[in-house]
Amino acid sequence: MVYGLGIDGGGSKTVCLLIDDRYQVLGRGEAGPSNYQSIGLSAATMAIKNAISQAVSYHQPGICIGSLGLGLAGVGRPEDIEIVRELVRQIQSNEQLQINWNIAPENFFIGGDSLIALVGGLGHDVGIVAMAGTGSQVFGRNHHGKIKRVGGWGYILGDEGGGYDIAVRGLRAVMRSFDGRLPPTRLTQELLNELGLKSPERLIEAVYRRGLGVRDMAALSTIIDRVAAEGDPVAETIITDVAQELVLATQVAIADLFNSGDFCEIVTVGGIWRGWSNLRSEFITGINAIAPQAEIVWPRHEPALGAALLAMKLR
Amino acid sequence: MVYGLGIDGGGSKTVCLLIDDRYQVLGRGEAGPSNYQSIGLSAATMAIKNAISQAVSYHQPGICIGSLGLGLAGVGRPEDIEIVRELVRQIQSNEQLQINWNIAPENFFIGGDSLIALVGGLGHDVGIVAMAGTGSQVFGRNHHGKIKRVGGWGYILGDEGGGYDIAVRGLRAVMRSFDGRLPPTRLTQELLNELGLKSPERLIEAVYRRGLGVRDMAALSTIIDRVAAEGDPVAETIITDVAQELVLATQVAIADLFNSGDFCEIVTVGGIWRGWSNLRSEFITGINAIAPQAEIVWPRHEPALGAALLAMKLR
Repeated sequence: MVYGLGIDGGGSKTVCLLIDDRYQVLGRGEAGPSNYQSIGLSAATMAIKNAISQAVSYHQPGICIGSLGLGLAGVGRPEDIEIVRELVRQIQSNEQLQINWNIAPENFFIGGDSLIALVGGLGHDVGIVAMAGTGSQVFGRNHHGKIKRVGGWGYILGDEGGGYDIAVRGLRAVMRSFDGRLPPTRLTQELLNELGLKSPERLIEAVYRRGLGVRDMAALSTIIDRVAAEGDPVAETIITDVAQELVLATQVAIADLFNSGDFCEIVTVGGIWRGWSNLRSEFITGINAIAPQAEIVWPRHEPALGAALLAMKLR
Repeated sequence: MVYGLGIDGGGSKTVCLLIDDRYQVLGRGEAGPSNYQSIGLSAATMAIKNAISQAVSYHQPGICIGSLGLGLAGVGRPEDIEIVRELVRQIQSNEQLQINWNIAPENFFIGGDSLIALVGGLGHDVGIVAMAGTGSQVFGRNHHGKIKRVGGWGYILGDEGGGYDIAVRGLRAVMRSFDGRLPPTRLTQELLNELGLKSPERLIEAVYRRGLGVRDMAALSTIIDRVAAEGDPVAETIITDVAQELVLATQVAIADLFNSGDFCEIVTVGGIWRGWSNLRSEFITGINAIAPQAEIVWPRHEPALGAALLAMKLR
């Protein structure tokens, strides 16, 4: 019996799935982040190795792995793929893992996080994935294999609709409300409470001097989401604005990949979609208005399964 | 004869003016940045000392200084003022300067950059200053001495209409145009040329990995301004949007400080106002629509003179 591994390596965690040739999940491992461009190659290698080790620990030693799919955030250019290939070689030469590697080149997949999210989310490789976590990106693929990316340019150049973007809009709204450019908003009290601050002016120290990181900031997006769900008009406006940003990005991807009227599935991946506010329902309303044939779905599987499928289906 | 010094200490340079008791400028010195919160106290002290040394070098040694005004970006809280007071004491004890210090407490002024910009810009201390350089802030003071600040929350929390904000809007527009969310724009070619990049995708490396600083980014705003002046609709929209941001901030300050219909002067300070685009004329149109009695003027003097006046007028 030959098995496959699918790995989803992100900025907050690494997930590895062990699957059989009927795509059944037999084991699952989770480890720390593996975005090597931020944390370095050896830490990323270690995280991926740990996730694999956990995933195969459900099985007897000496398991034969015949396919490996690995999706890593930020991996797209040929030089990135070469780096990751070398990283995998190191893991394969690690004897602690007690894995019998037997992977043909066509069963070895390395790619970015978008395609594995699409394939995991839909269970197939045609459609669109609208990802909104810390950052955001819309990615699509059509029947001819043509792909289209929209957004995903990071916290300074874009990522509209991601957690960082929502949080910055929320914090800016607090400052605008404080100096009279916006009406009072419950965001002020809720965000200050969360950060343990007494006044909006203290945000300067918290953000610039204490140095709230991108991920810390993004975590604040849940508060904007909740305050919007509770009916605060300033927070609601933020949610409506970012929903429109995500609609626009998705609309561009649909127009680029599909003929008008073609059926297509759009899967919403990432924590932002699972809030209490109207973000996702406003997104659905927006998409229905411009592409009534499109169907918006929740992810069917996690991205790591997408990575495993991408490595297996070519066998 | 007793003279006064006025110092404007900012993030890019420090300016010192030597004036006589009829407010005539007798000497001027310029040195490096003196925002001690970023560059450290000793570097700031050195810059201020150098600027003073240059300003008094026009005069014979042993000059008697009877008033000192010092405006530093970011100085507002009592603890900041105490730090700057100690910094000044160190400079005063420096014998190289060959200055005879004889400053009564009421002729010693320490404050932020806004009030000195207002007083320098208008030549008096009632009105509004709309500052737009790397960052932005609107600051006003009325006849009763009441002050109002709007914006100026820094590059993450605000600074709408400052150079950094304009640059980020420009770079985001390039990415949006690249992936089809905006029409083609001349900003793409002009910004890529400036940064020596071949494609918009390369901006990721330039912005995140090479680490374009806040000030480097802000410098790109001149390109957005020029492309707008040349009629590019995407750039024009950015300029219109930030002009509206500056109008809103100014409107809030006017409403807070002046009765409807009261005459007030608004001085525009900072490099952003001196571009070729319609930014300032759109600002004037916007202010005229909401406060027809307000008059928008160019700075009459530089902020360092404001600092000198603030120290002298109380004598």
